[in-house]
Amino acid sequence: MSSNRPRVPTRAETGRAHAEVGSDERRARVAWSRVLEPRRERSGEEPSLLHSQVVALGHVEAWHRLVDGDLPRCASARAHVADVDVDGELTRVAQVGSRVVIPGDADWPAAFDHPDISPHLVHVRGDACLADLARRAVAVVGSRASSGYGEAIAREMGAGLAHHGWTTVSGAAYGIDGAAHLGALAVDGPVVAVLPCGPERAYPEGHRRLIDAVAQAGVVVTELATGTVARRHRFLARNRLIAALGQACVVVEAGLRSGSLNTAGWAEALHRPIGAVPGPVTQMSSAGCHEWIRLERAMLVTDTAEVLGLAAPVGQAPDEVVERLGPARAPDVLSSAQRRIHDLLRVGAGVDTATLATDLVAPVEEVIGQLALMQLQGWAVQDDAGMWRDPGR
Amino acid sequence: MSSNRPRVPTRAETGRAHAEVGSDERRARVAWSRVLEPRRERSGEEPSLLHSQVVALGHVEAWHRLVDGDLPRCASARAHVADVDVDGELTRVAQVGSRVVIPGDADWPAAFDHPDISPHLVHVRGDACLADLARRAVAVVGSRASSGYGEAIAREMGAGLAHHGWTTVSGAAYGIDGAAHLGALAVDGPVVAVLPCGPERAYPEGHRRLIDAVAQAGVVVTELATGTVARRHRFLARNRLIAALGQACVVVEAGLRSGSLNTAGWAEALHRPIGAVPGPVTQMSSAGCHEWIRLERAMLVTDTAEVLGLAAPVGQAPDEVVERLGPARAPDVLSSAQRRIHDLLRVGAGVDTATLATDLVAPVEEVIGQLALMQLQGWAVQDDAGMWRDPGR
Repeated sequence: MSSNRPRVPTRAETGRAHAEVGSDERRARVAWSRVLEPRRERSGEEPSLLHSQVVALGHVEAWHRLVDGDLPRCASARAHVADVDVDGELTRVAQVGSRVVIPGDADWPAAFDHPDISPHLVHVRGDACLADLARRAVAVVGSRASSGYGEAIAREMGAGLAHHGWTTVSGAAYGIDGAAHLGALAVDGPVVAVLPCGPERAYPEGHRRLIDAVAQAGVVVTELATGTVARRHRFLARNRLIAALGQACVVVEAGLRSGSLNTAGWAEALHRPIGAVPGPVTQMSSAGCHEWIRLERAMLVTDTAEVLGLAAPVGQAPDEVVERLGPARAPDVLSSAQRRIHDLLRVGAGVDTATLATDLVAPVEEVIGQLALMQLQGWAVQDDAGMWRDPGR
Repeated sequence: MSSNRPRVPTRAETGRAHAEVGSDERRARVAWSRVLEPRRERSGEEPSLLHSQVVALGHVEAWHRLVDGDLPRCASARAHVADVDVDGELTRVAQVGSRVVIPGDADWPAAFDHPDISPHLVHVRGDACLADLARRAVAVVGSRASSGYGEAIAREMGAGLAHHGWTTVSGAAYGIDGAAHLGALAVDGPVVAVLPCGPERAYPEGHRRLIDAVAQAGVVVTELATGTVARRHRFLARNRLIAALGQACVVVEAGLRSGSLNTAGWAEALHRPIGAVPGPVTQMSSAGCHEWIRLERAMLVTDTAEVLGLAAPVGQAPDEVVERLGPARAPDVLSSAQRRIHDLLRVGAGVDTATLATDLVAPVEEVIGQLALMQLQGWAVQDDAGMWRDPGR
């Protein structure tokens, strides 16, 4: 017998664990946040199966099944159910000035409902409304090992987005993240920081004052339970919230192995437009940006106007942006996959999803995801018969 | 009566002008080079009509018709026929160490046969064979108002291309052109300079020694008659030869209104892959490069390997390049228009040109041009029945 075998709760403990939650959605989500870490991989790994079960059953039902050991691969989560103290967690969260936000709350951003995102909850600190801030937001990310060049651009970007009323979402890290936050803060702009640790912590510690300033001007967000410290896998999970909160994602400066490209990868999986700022090819600090542009995973952007050209839905870009760039054109804002769909929509009088998938040699779910975003941004319409068209025709 | 009305040659003069050429193709081309400047616009302006007539009739026949005033819109060219002295021109050309190269000569590059290029002739100075040099060549262009950053990259590019046995073609201008030539010369690499003036001149004058060095290591080329000085419209015409001589065109550094983008425009019209090197977005000196990348008129390139990935036909990139970039993939080397064709070729078992044009909502001639280049580079094959396929299928 291995001493590492997960502990099984006693009968008395399971009774208490059931009672902790009862039929309360919020309490169920708080309970889950203490036993199951956020998903961090887009592929179907072991944790994802349990996550999928929770999403499928709902947090309340899933909690009771977890307590009874009646879920697949739940042993390690179940080992902790006896320790869950929902009231204690709610008290700790309130003590640090945060509130627990779950689906149905005014603060809850619609983007979190995506099955690949779906946090149990988020702790939100700051008076602003997260859902409002996220309605017009850009994820601005980049290297911690940034150059003065990259930092200057990130500051400009934060301030420039604020100038147009757009929110800067980032991760409060050293380097590009911090510079983007500072740029937005410098002009009292809307700003969101998503942390890779519990709500009572600041990460990095050296950015504690910056993070407090973000909470004053906007909100600081984390889906992690109190007491959770920053670890590599938590950065990866945190990145998906940053990507989800932006209508677009901009990589300001990134080397080939920068973690910020993980955030861009999430934005890609969510079919968000991605921008990357070029830099001198003689420095490796922009090599990741160049690689993504070269492979057409990102659009080259040089300023805020071009970023808003990517982020704003068709017809909703600020006047100043339209003046500079002209009205949005499909080739400028759609990803290469979306453009291939757009091309096909322009040819015929109307086409169904299955035909599109066949013509594109792409999985139907992928095509559905792309079409949904294109519909949202005004590049595709679906008639009552389910046929897709280019609205411009 | 306007005193500006073109002079009409006398009977005696037309007799001499006919005799100057007789039935000799080379003499006819030399004669034409003295009365009709190269085409410089891709659109159908007045000079183009006369050019087209010359191409259609052949230089000998066209010359005699010109002398007789029997060509459309030929008045201004005809006004000079009395002054043409073919032997004098041949002597002057030989005196400056140049030779006259026309179609059929070993030196004549196949790319010059394109109807949009078709110089009457080129004056070539240097022992190397222009056609050989052009077989593996990249047009490297950029601003005269270059930065130290851009010049360093241009030098690296010239040297890097030489390292792989590729020729650097440029225009000997100050700034990027000169730096590219210097880079190639520094490693005794193959190099071609195309001048915007007659063969006895150096332009710019300050690059006379550089131009002489190019003639030592490779060749100096011009299609302009002796005595012709550099003028704006001649730069534009010269640019089409630079674009034609490269299998790809790289813009190293260019502001938004840089003349080097005119060269890139010629490369585009010739369906050559175009690369652009990014730089700091905080300096306008790379803004033209960024604009072309953003609009997907150019691929972002950061070094020689990526340039050769664009320039080398499928399966013929240097090992070092393949090692670094992997085998060429269609999305990396094809233009967006070519990729749309490639997508369509991949779907079906074989498709004819007219159907492709319909599906792409593009003119048939445009599609034919793209297919010809794709066939040359190994991305498309045509069967005996005229149907196009993706060779990879």
